[in-house]
Amino acid sequence: MATFSLNVLGCGSAKPTPEHMPSCSVLNVRDSLYMIDCGEGAQLGLRRKGLKLNRLNHIFLTHLHGDHVFGLPGLLGTMGLMGREGHITIHTFESGIRMLKEIIGYFCSDMPYEIRFNAIKAERAVIYEDVRLRIRTIPLKHRVPCVGYVFEEQPKPRHLDMAAVNFHGVPRSMYSAIKSGESFQKENGLIIPASALTKPPTPSYSYAHIGDTSYIPAIADEIGPVDLLYHESTYLTQHEADAKKRGHSTARQAAMMARDCGAKQLLLGHYSSRYKDDCLFAAEAREVFPNVISAREGLTVNVG
Amino acid sequence: MATFSLNVLGCGSAKPTPEHMPSCSVLNVRDSLYMIDCGEGAQLGLRRKGLKLNRLNHIFLTHLHGDHVFGLPGLLGTMGLMGREGHITIHTFESGIRMLKEIIGYFCSDMPYEIRFNAIKAERAVIYEDVRLRIRTIPLKHRVPCVGYVFEEQPKPRHLDMAAVNFHGVPRSMYSAIKSGESFQKENGLIIPASALTKPPTPSYSYAHIGDTSYIPAIADEIGPVDLLYHESTYLTQHEADAKKRGHSTARQAAMMARDCGAKQLLLGHYSSRYKDDCLFAAEAREVFPNVISAREGLTVNVG
Repeated sequence: MATFSLNVLGCGSAKPTPEHMPSCSVLNVRDSLYMIDCGEGAQLGLRRKGLKLNRLNHIFLTHLHGDHVFGLPGLLGTMGLMGREGHITIHTFESGIRMLKEIIGYFCSDMPYEIRFNAIKAERAVIYEDVRLRIRTIPLKHRVPCVGYVFEEQPKPRHLDMAAVNFHGVPRSMYSAIKSGESFQKENGLIIPASALTKPPTPSYSYAHIGDTSYIPAIADEIGPVDLLYHESTYLTQHEADAKKRGHSTARQAAMMARDCGAKQLLLGHYSSRYKDDCLFAAEAREVFPNVISAREGLTVNVG
Repeated sequence: MATFSLNVLGCGSAKPTPEHMPSCSVLNVRDSLYMIDCGEGAQLGLRRKGLKLNRLNHIFLTHLHGDHVFGLPGLLGTMGLMGREGHITIHTFESGIRMLKEIIGYFCSDMPYEIRFNAIKAERAVIYEDVRLRIRTIPLKHRVPCVGYVFEEQPKPRHLDMAAVNFHGVPRSMYSAIKSGESFQKENGLIIPASALTKPPTPSYSYAHIGDTSYIPAIADEIGPVDLLYHESTYLTQHEADAKKRGHSTARQAAMMARDCGAKQLLLGHYSSRYKDDCLFAAEAREVFPNVISAREGLTVNVG
C-alpha cells in the first residue's frame, strides 16, 4: 500500500470530450487526501476511485476558471448530505473566496461541517504546514492569476539501529531524542553520535502540480527535484504559438521542466481536445525526459 | 424517428450514488431541445446521448436545490467554448436569476452567445409559447419554491384529403385556408366544409414534469391527460412519512397522479439512494397504474 500517491480524476482541458473530465487531482499522503482543482464531476471521480470524502480536508485551487472549479458546489453539498463533520479548507484567491461564499451561502447553507477559506496570492509562499506536509505556491503565467503547488513531506526521524542502541546501552527514555539527532554520552564519557545509533529515515516524498501555465524556465529551481512533477501539456510543439498565446505549455516544454528541476517522474495532462491520441504527448515529452506518465481518469501514480 | 421524446440524463436524488446522476431531463420536440433541470454532469449526459448543444435554447429549472442546478455553469461555459451563437433562455425564480447572473458574470463572461432569463413564479401560468409549444407552470410543494412544467404541442393543421380536394376542384391557392378550417364554396354554390376535405392532423403530444414535490392530489386536473407524465418517486410507501416530511412523493402516489390526471404513461425517477433496487418503484406503482416506465440515465422515451 503506497503512502504517497497521486490520483487523477480529470485531465482534460476546458472543452470537454467524451474521453476526459475537467481538471481534478487528489494527492494521498498516508490516507489524508489533498485535492488540487475541482472540475465538474470531481465527486463522481472520488466515488469511482473509492476515495473517502471524510479523508479530504483541503482543496487547493490553481486558478478560477470554470473547468477547475465547477465541481466544488456539488462536492461540498454532498459532503453535507453524507453527514460530514469537522471542517474543510479551500485555498484560493480572495476574489474566488467571495464568489464561493456567495454560492455556498445560497446552495449549501446549513452544512453539518465548517467550510474554511485560506486566501492565497499569486506569489512564492508557504501557504500551509503541518507535522506531515509543507505546501508552497509558485506563481504561474496564465490568462488569470494562477499558482502551482509543491507538496513536500516533512523530514521524518531516523530509525533506531537497535543493534547499535543495545551495544551502547542506550536507555529507552532516550530513543526519541536519539532519533531526533541528539548524541548519547555513555557512562565512561564516550559520546556516540546519533548517526552511529540510527539508520536513514523513511524517505520524504514530494509532488509539484504545475498548471495551467505558459512555460516558465525560471521556476525549475523553485520546484526542485520532486519525486513527481505534474506539468500541464495542453498542446504539442506544432502548436507552441497557440500554447503561448493561451497561457499553456507543450509536452516538450513540460519535459524540459522535468529535466531542469530534476524531477524523478513527469506526469502529463490537461490535454487539448484537438488531438485524437493522448499518446502523442508522452511520445513528444520522452524525446527530452525519459520517465513520462500520461494522465488518464482513474490513474493512480504510486510515488512511495 | 420520434418527433416528441424525453431523454433522461439524471434520475438520482440529492445524495449521489454510483448508479445515478443528479436531475436532468431533455425534451426533444422535432429536434428542438428543452432541458428540465441541470444537475452536475448534465453536459456529460448530453454528449453521451449525442444531443446537440446548439439545439438547446431553453432550460427550465424546477427549483434551486444544487442537485438540480450545479451542471448549469459548466454547460453554459462549454457552449461558449463550442462557439455557440444566438441566445439561450433560463427559466427560473428571481432569486436564482440573481445568483446565476453572479456566477455567470464571474466564470462565463465574454460568451459568444447571449444568456437570457425568464423570471417565473410558483404559480399557475403560461410561461412560454411559440408556434410549436405552450409551456405552463404548476406550483408544487417542496422545501423551497418549486414548479412543475407542462409542455403541450400546439394544435396542428389538419391534412388535406387529396382525393376529396381533387374531386371538388379546390384550387391550390386555398389549400392553406382549408387546412386551417375554412370551408370551400364550389362554383355551383355548394359549400363543402373543411372536415370533408381534410383528414385528422398529426397528433399534438404533451409532457408533464412534476418534481420535486409532496403528493398534491388536487393538481391532477391541472396536469390533464398528458401523453407522458414524469412524477418524482423518491420513496416507497413504507417511507411515506419521510416523503411528506422532506417534500417528496412515493411511487404509489406518483401512480395515483398518473391515474387521476389521465396520463397515458408514467415515468418514475428521483430515486432515493436508500433503496438498492430501482425496480421496486415500478413494481409499487404498477399496483395502481399499469403503464409505468423506470427512469435510468440515457433512457429515451419516444412519445410520438
